[in-house]
Amino acid sequence: MQEYDQHNLTKAVIARLADTPNARTKQIMTSLVRHLHDFAREVRLTEAEWKQGIDYLTATGQMCDDKRQEFILLSDVLGLSMLTVAMNQEKPEGCTEATVFGPFHVEGAPHYAHGADVANGANGEPCMVYGRVTGVDGRPVAGAVVETWQADADGHYDVQYEGLEVAQGRGVLKSGEDGRFHFRTIVAQAYPIPDDGPVGELLRATGRHPWRPAHLHFMIKAPGYETLVTHVFRRGDKYLDSDAVFGVRTSLIGDWVRQTDGTYRLDFDFVLNPTR
Amino acid sequence: MQEYDQHNLTKAVIARLADTPNARTKQIMTSLVRHLHDFAREVRLTEAEWKQGIDYLTATGQMCDDKRQEFILLSDVLGLSMLTVAMNQEKPEGCTEATVFGPFHVEGAPHYAHGADVANGANGEPCMVYGRVTGVDGRPVAGAVVETWQADADGHYDVQYEGLEVAQGRGVLKSGEDGRFHFRTIVAQAYPIPDDGPVGELLRATGRHPWRPAHLHFMIKAPGYETLVTHVFRRGDKYLDSDAVFGVRTSLIGDWVRQTDGTYRLDFDFVLNPTR
Repeated sequence: MQEYDQHNLTKAVIARLADTPNARTKQIMTSLVRHLHDFAREVRLTEAEWKQGIDYLTATGQMCDDKRQEFILLSDVLGLSMLTVAMNQEKPEGCTEATVFGPFHVEGAPHYAHGADVANGANGEPCMVYGRVTGVDGRPVAGAVVETWQADADGHYDVQYEGLEVAQGRGVLKSGEDGRFHFRTIVAQAYPIPDDGPVGELLRATGRHPWRPAHLHFMIKAPGYETLVTHVFRRGDKYLDSDAVFGVRTSLIGDWVRQTDGTYRLDFDFVLNPTR
Repeated sequence: MQEYDQHNLTKAVIARLADTPNARTKQIMTSLVRHLHDFAREVRLTEAEWKQGIDYLTATGQMCDDKRQEFILLSDVLGLSMLTVAMNQEKPEGCTEATVFGPFHVEGAPHYAHGADVANGANGEPCMVYGRVTGVDGRPVAGAVVETWQADADGHYDVQYEGLEVAQGRGVLKSGEDGRFHFRTIVAQAYPIPDDGPVGELLRATGRHPWRPAHLHFMIKAPGYETLVTHVFRRGDKYLDSDAVFGVRTSLIGDWVRQTDGTYRLDFDFVLNPTR
């Protein structure tokens, strides 16, 4: 009978995956087991630390509900979300870059006409957003489904408010024949990611701040093009260099320009990548 | 400003750990981030697979309650639990080897006198267990606290029965002056680990069976000695070579001997390692 020790056990666990029907599942699990064991051996994980890890993952899962996804937050602060985006969303020169999806998107956001107030009661300084959707050739993309969502001036998304029934600061528009769309909303502000759970605990234990630079989320879908999931970040934000979730790309920084009447205006154009 | 791509992002995340106050935390998190990112890059994790992983970890956490610890089960079937034991419980020649703790230990098990029936109503064939606790020098260890727990003939631990108020198949005894103890219980049988949750899903997806060879759990504590957490496995069990949690060690295999009256008897001695 095979005797397992800390050196040959990894091989034995991987051998146990031999009958995995799906080749991709086998590849992923084999790599996962090797890296998991290599990590434990590299740090010589103690039994107390193993138990702490078990308790941490359990608490993270139990923090999740229909409005809070702590494991996505964890993936975000560990850079895994941005790494996955970077690996899968490499766009050709000239296309708008993608960034993290984040945990605050909600299915079924309300649809709005051009010029409508997407803020819908969210607290913040008024801001008009003007955008244009084109292909790499500069030709307008008509009828693109443009979804936007953002936090309010207090740094909270609508879903973070207990018992708030209406969607605030999120909505769906369609680009016109000229690829253009515009809507009214509020000025994006920097905010801390929810840090009252295990992810906040991790940030404090590693001496990290929970702040994200001010940004406006966009998801743009159009037939014949890759869906674009991205943000527009606010130029001048003090957290652009230290986004808690590593989502910033310089090509995604835009200007919120103060108008004479005291309101703000953001202009940002989006270039979609044709479906491969 | 630093632009992140799939190659330089890992370094950026690790750099963000620079201010971690505790050196051990910094070491563990740095290694964890490197291996997590290396895994994702090695398999070129897709966004759909990332989401599947997030959902899997969430479901695993939400399966946990005061009687079910799905993350320990997951660690067990991935060999991480046994690896942690192997790294931390290397005993000198002659000492009884350790194995996995498992998710079915319960604090506050009832105390029993020698000869008492620890089964306490659990279903199974009667069996007497005789043990002796000594040091490596063969000298008896008197007053050792010997805790035992096991599954019944149907492969369930007492905690797996909804609404069962009493402890069955688990108890605490003290070794006598001669280091000996004995108790009555039931014959250990092979059983499948709980496979109605995410861990069962993983086992099926990887073509693995959920069975553990028949075993009796022991945790033995005595002043001046390392606490021993181990099992005695039943010789002849068909799953000794394929324990779902990789816990078997040949030195831990014992003989359940059928007696003339039809009951069984197990004799097994335990050699403790002095505290380092």
